[in-house]
Amino acid sequence: MAMARTGKQEAIEVPWLYKKLNPEVAAENAYVGYYKDKGKCCYGVFEGIIAELRKEVGSPYTTIPTSMMIYGEGGIAETANICGALNGASALIFLTTGRIEIEKRGVAYALINELFNWYEQEALPNYRPKNPKFEIVKSVSRSTICHASVSNWCKTAKFKSFSKERSERCAWLTASVAKYAVELLNKNFEGNFKPVHNLSATVQSCRSCHDEGSVLENTRGTMDCGGCHFTQKIKHPKT
Amino acid sequence: MAMARTGKQEAIEVPWLYKKLNPEVAAENAYVGYYKDKGKCCYGVFEGIIAELRKEVGSPYTTIPTSMMIYGEGGIAETANICGALNGASALIFLTTGRIEIEKRGVAYALINELFNWYEQEALPNYRPKNPKFEIVKSVSRSTICHASVSNWCKTAKFKSFSKERSERCAWLTASVAKYAVELLNKNFEGNFKPVHNLSATVQSCRSCHDEGSVLENTRGTMDCGGCHFTQKIKHPKT
Repeated sequence: MAMARTGKQEAIEVPWLYKKLNPEVAAENAYVGYYKDKGKCCYGVFEGIIAELRKEVGSPYTTIPTSMMIYGEGGIAETANICGALNGASALIFLTTGRIEIEKRGVAYALINELFNWYEQEALPNYRPKNPKFEIVKSVSRSTICHASVSNWCKTAKFKSFSKERSERCAWLTASVAKYAVELLNKNFEGNFKPVHNLSATVQSCRSCHDEGSVLENTRGTMDCGGCHFTQKIKHPKT
Repeated sequence: MAMARTGKQEAIEVPWLYKKLNPEVAAENAYVGYYKDKGKCCYGVFEGIIAELRKEVGSPYTTIPTSMMIYGEGGIAETANICGALNGASALIFLTTGRIEIEKRGVAYALINELFNWYEQEALPNYRPKNPKFEIVKSVSRSTICHASVSNWCKTAKFKSFSKERSERCAWLTASVAKYAVELLNKNFEGNFKPVHNLSATVQSCRSCHDEGSVLENTRGTMDCGGCHFTQKIKHPKT
């Protein structure tokens, strides 16, 4: 932890001290946080993990207004863009492992990238809360975007996007993301984190023409391209 | 402002006191914040506005670790999902106008939705910093997603996605988003905010079959559907 670099503020800047947490406790907190005050996905993950850090570390975790993170609800203010659980987890991961110096951000970004790739590739939610409202089937999202993730689950589960079951699925997903984020942070704390979910060969193929250093170099990023592009009947132009 | 509801923490929960700010000063701060410490888009907007609130309001703005928001860089840890400038602005808008009670979140969410619709529909960046590195042409993003917004600009400007010019465009965009966010917050502070960028008739048509209360009800959200779906040669199935 480092004190602010100027006299202008008293804020304690990243990284804040992390201590190993119980992933299942964080998951249960996140599930409760989703429903408590109807804080939903982003708040659920962020508050669910911070609550344990308040106990294990104390200050400065006692000072951060976790209610700010409610904004990530439903992909930010219900716009259904980035999954709120991922958004809240990313902020928390950077708070605890991030660095202001750009050349030292790699650790936090590797943890976040692993979380995002896991979210796109695994059948989720994979954490069942102790006292669920419903049983929830799993689906593979192929996207870190709220509305795509929701639509793919609705198709698999045969429930509507504003059903109580879909909301419960997002509560389980909030718990699942909190659990995996803590597992990653614990591994990093112990010095043995290695990414296990990598970009697929297909995505790497897309990036070889469209990402940094390529011939076209007309986009960027590490999202699963095929989750949105060249689906259904549309084919990629011949190369 | 309200003190935390339990004895477990000392955090001051949302909403934090807002005072009218100068949008152009926030924009210049955001531009500088993009480059300073290479904080980039999300941090640039968040720190750019908070810096003024530290001056105008003081505590508790002096206590928040704005460096946490670096995580939004390049659509969250360079994954190129949600535009970082929008992510940082949304957190700031909720911090200053949000409420824990779900039935009182409408004001903050209306401000965020206006910002998102503006971002999709307007030719941006529309703020020219006082000391730019390059001159930057405008484009219409049709998407709040980083990589789509970048790709549309690259197509219009004929620069590559990892060029210095594209980075400068994102710095101008960071400034533009900070400026419009402050304009919206000022209007809300004065009690005369009204949304001026609404969902298009096309998006409303999509939502009439796919969103809440519709026959299919298989997705959600307020993003511009046509920015990604049924582009190029693919047509919507006959209804």
